[in-house]
Amino acid sequence: MSANWKRYQELLCVVDGVTLDVSKLKTPSGWPASEASRFERAFDAMDALEKGAVANPDEQRRVGHYWLRAPELAPTEERAAITDTLSRVKAFSADVHMGRVVGSTGSKFSRALIIGIGGSALGPQLATDALGSTSDKMSLSFFDNTDPDGMDRVLAQLSGALKETLVVVISKSGGTKETRNGMLEAKAAFERAGFDFAKHAVAVTGAGSELDKAAAGWLARFPMWDWVGGRTSQLSAVGLLPAALQGLDVDGLLAGARAMDAATRVRDVQKNPAALLALAWHHASSGRGAKDLVVLPYKDRLLLLSRYLQQLVMESLGKEKDLDGKVVEQGLSVYGNKGSTDQHAYVQQLRDGVANHFVLFVEVLKDRPSAGIEVEPGVTSGDYLLGFLLGTRAALAEKGRESITLTVPDVSARTLGALIALFERTVGFYATLININAYHQPGVEAGKKAAESVLALQKKVVSALDATPRGVEQIAEAISAEPETVFQILRHLSANGRATHAAGKYAR
Amino acid sequence: MSANWKRYQELLCVVDGVTLDVSKLKTPSGWPASEASRFERAFDAMDALEKGAVANPDEQRRVGHYWLRAPELAPTEERAAITDTLSRVKAFSADVHMGRVVGSTGSKFSRALIIGIGGSALGPQLATDALGSTSDKMSLSFFDNTDPDGMDRVLAQLSGALKETLVVVISKSGGTKETRNGMLEAKAAFERAGFDFAKHAVAVTGAGSELDKAAAGWLARFPMWDWVGGRTSQLSAVGLLPAALQGLDVDGLLAGARAMDAATRVRDVQKNPAALLALAWHHASSGRGAKDLVVLPYKDRLLLLSRYLQQLVMESLGKEKDLDGKVVEQGLSVYGNKGSTDQHAYVQQLRDGVANHFVLFVEVLKDRPSAGIEVEPGVTSGDYLLGFLLGTRAALAEKGRESITLTVPDVSARTLGALIALFERTVGFYATLININAYHQPGVEAGKKAAESVLALQKKVVSALDATPRGVEQIAEAISAEPETVFQILRHLSANGRATHAAGKYAR
Repeated sequence: MSANWKRYQELLCVVDGVTLDVSKLKTPSGWPASEASRFERAFDAMDALEKGAVANPDEQRRVGHYWLRAPELAPTEERAAITDTLSRVKAFSADVHMGRVVGSTGSKFSRALIIGIGGSALGPQLATDALGSTSDKMSLSFFDNTDPDGMDRVLAQLSGALKETLVVVISKSGGTKETRNGMLEAKAAFERAGFDFAKHAVAVTGAGSELDKAAAGWLARFPMWDWVGGRTSQLSAVGLLPAALQGLDVDGLLAGARAMDAATRVRDVQKNPAALLALAWHHASSGRGAKDLVVLPYKDRLLLLSRYLQQLVMESLGKEKDLDGKVVEQGLSVYGNKGSTDQHAYVQQLRDGVANHFVLFVEVLKDRPSAGIEVEPGVTSGDYLLGFLLGTRAALAEKGRESITLTVPDVSARTLGALIALFERTVGFYATLININAYHQPGVEAGKKAAESVLALQKKVVSALDATPRGVEQIAEAISAEPETVFQILRHLSANGRATHAAGKYAR
Repeated sequence: MSANWKRYQELLCVVDGVTLDVSKLKTPSGWPASEASRFERAFDAMDALEKGAVANPDEQRRVGHYWLRAPELAPTEERAAITDTLSRVKAFSADVHMGRVVGSTGSKFSRALIIGIGGSALGPQLATDALGSTSDKMSLSFFDNTDPDGMDRVLAQLSGALKETLVVVISKSGGTKETRNGMLEAKAAFERAGFDFAKHAVAVTGAGSELDKAAAGWLARFPMWDWVGGRTSQLSAVGLLPAALQGLDVDGLLAGARAMDAATRVRDVQKNPAALLALAWHHASSGRGAKDLVVLPYKDRLLLLSRYLQQLVMESLGKEKDLDGKVVEQGLSVYGNKGSTDQHAYVQQLRDGVANHFVLFVEVLKDRPSAGIEVEPGVTSGDYLLGFLLGTRAALAEKGRESITLTVPDVSARTLGALIALFERTVGFYATLININAYHQPGVEAGKKAAESVLALQKKVVSALDATPRGVEQIAEAISAEPETVFQILRHLSANGRATHAAGKYAR
């Protein structure tokens, strides 16, 4: 028997239709069993988390996203909230589909505009792209930024169909400015068209939030809870409401995640794909993000998986301090689009260039619903897709580049649910291995606060402008501000036809 | 005067409406002037390249993409080819728009399906997304992979409109398998619908290629030349034909690139934005890809810029050997999507986590065509967008993370042309700084060859199957193949209803 075949079989992990192959990593013989005893701590931490321990100590929060697909594991109060919300999501979506809930002019809703960012957009975007078809019950569009032109563009595509458009505003905190701005821009568009926005809008947000209050007269409100983080919220109303409106199989999503959760509770690192994947990442990145994780699904429908994983992985693991307060500057950088497409973009560098990465190949066994054509005798387009995956993997291995291969049967709701759960638990285990809190994001606030100070400065700049042309330095001096920021503000105002009477050698 | 403001002004480079700010890098005083003398070599190499020297020594090819927007610089023969092709692209597109060239049933073309991958897709995709609107003359779809389901999905969206669909097949070599497969899948779809594919198809390819021959009876053929590389082909027929069909301003694209080329011929590193950007990248990545380049355009329309740059940068710079044959394993990893969206995904790690990156912020001054609403008194959604850019930049700087800021006036054809030229020249200069050939991709062939061997093995596997159920190892032994690959092939065939009589403990 070939050594490769022996190693392949020994290291292969197969559960619930998902196969994880870590044999192309340059791990020593005896791995991962050699890691089993130190992994006990990760299993213990996950156990405690699932039982309701405070797994996010900085924010004194429990971490309950695993309860979303197994409410029987949740404390009584949360259990009721989960099951009630799921029922309400389904009932509301059915009402929309049946025309029992209609827009301000009595038209049935045919489209949904989802307004959210980060954890309130990446999951819904992944799901709609992975599972959507031309026979969906509703088509989804997104506002996922505060770019005015970006929103205008989406509105132009909805032009003429606003009366059939339901708006779903999603913000856990209810105070995210991009989402607030998106909501205001959408509201203004509905009002320009003469429609009552409140009769087109629903909210998904925490009780008592700014958004929750704004949504008082809307069609419906769905809850978010402080025990579900944004990046693990796809199986709460955040992800399930858009999916249900689109007509996707939400029970399949939940069942897939539930089954993967169960499979990844097994306390055996070789038989538990999340444990094995966490150990594989830890090996390949030396447990300190020494190499980037390149995610290459060979399937167009999984194009957004890498973007989803950027948040899940980088926001969870990218931490300055460990749980003991020691500065560790941890993380794991993630990028990638899809294969074989990316082979024609940057496999040149992956194979020959700077050796700062390892690849996660994702293979999907099912090619297409129907038989399809042959592109050569006995050969299909899908055979080429597999050929390119295996060929690229071999070409990388030849140059000592490591890779992992995850194989799934198809791109169904059940499989997507399983993938979401697999990566959530992998990240959770990995966090314990490197002793960090995966469930907070202390570094995000600084940028938001600095942004608020730029906007406050803009108000000062505008009020300091008068009929006298003055230079940037004079204006900055008048309001005791940094000239560079004053310049940036003035340049932007001027480019948009505002504050055009400001002058200075750098104004354009 | 604040030290920051002084440094900002000293290092600022402004040309042709584009502003490059490298003041947030931790460069020593006197930089970049201190690099001027060693940069002379890069200016010389670029000069020689533009004059027709063999700048790609491994393939003994000239590198002529700068001629595409300044044909007067090209040798006589190439000059005629460039101008003739541009005229033909415009004339053909006008014929299509005016209904002088129509589909097999006499219908005017309203859509174009572009079939290409890598350099034959990334540029067209960037341009269509950056510059498109609901008033375009034609809408574009893409086959950019050999994923059967992915192609089915695009065809489903074109369902009912095939008679109005023009197919543009783009392959420089004319032998790219993904593109060949896409062409065959499209052809089959047209035939199923009863339409004559040849009356819907045009090709962009090298003279005499496999595709060129297949396209003999098609509506038109446009040339590609061996002196234009795939990743720098956006301003050849590869990018200009899709753009012209869509109704984009191809003259604007060319003019923007031409002006940026002129601005980046200036032999002064502080006044030449491509030279300054190359030096900035070199500084930030220690001239060896020590840190990743995170591209964050704060504009939805520039979402695909990072994917375009992944190819341009990584395929150009990701090289094993330098020009002297020394093993250097060079490169520069690129990723990113858009701001402020990505702030909610992974700025947590960029600021607090593993310090393995630097950021290129891209600011667009113009917010939207019309005035738009205020989201707070005196404040627009666009003000927030700028606020988040500056806020995030400050939050990163606070933790010692370096960044560069590129500011453009708008997202117009002219600006996009300028950006393409700026990055092409930056990469060219950078390649000279690290002494590598930016214009070949020797590492790409290995994966393709390995893929061909998988497909050849599949044929052997299929012919080895007979009525007797056998395990993977027995089949592998019978054809002297590696059992793992045999297993992968059988598993894939079986999942797609083929070769289901193969068995074995790993068959699913």
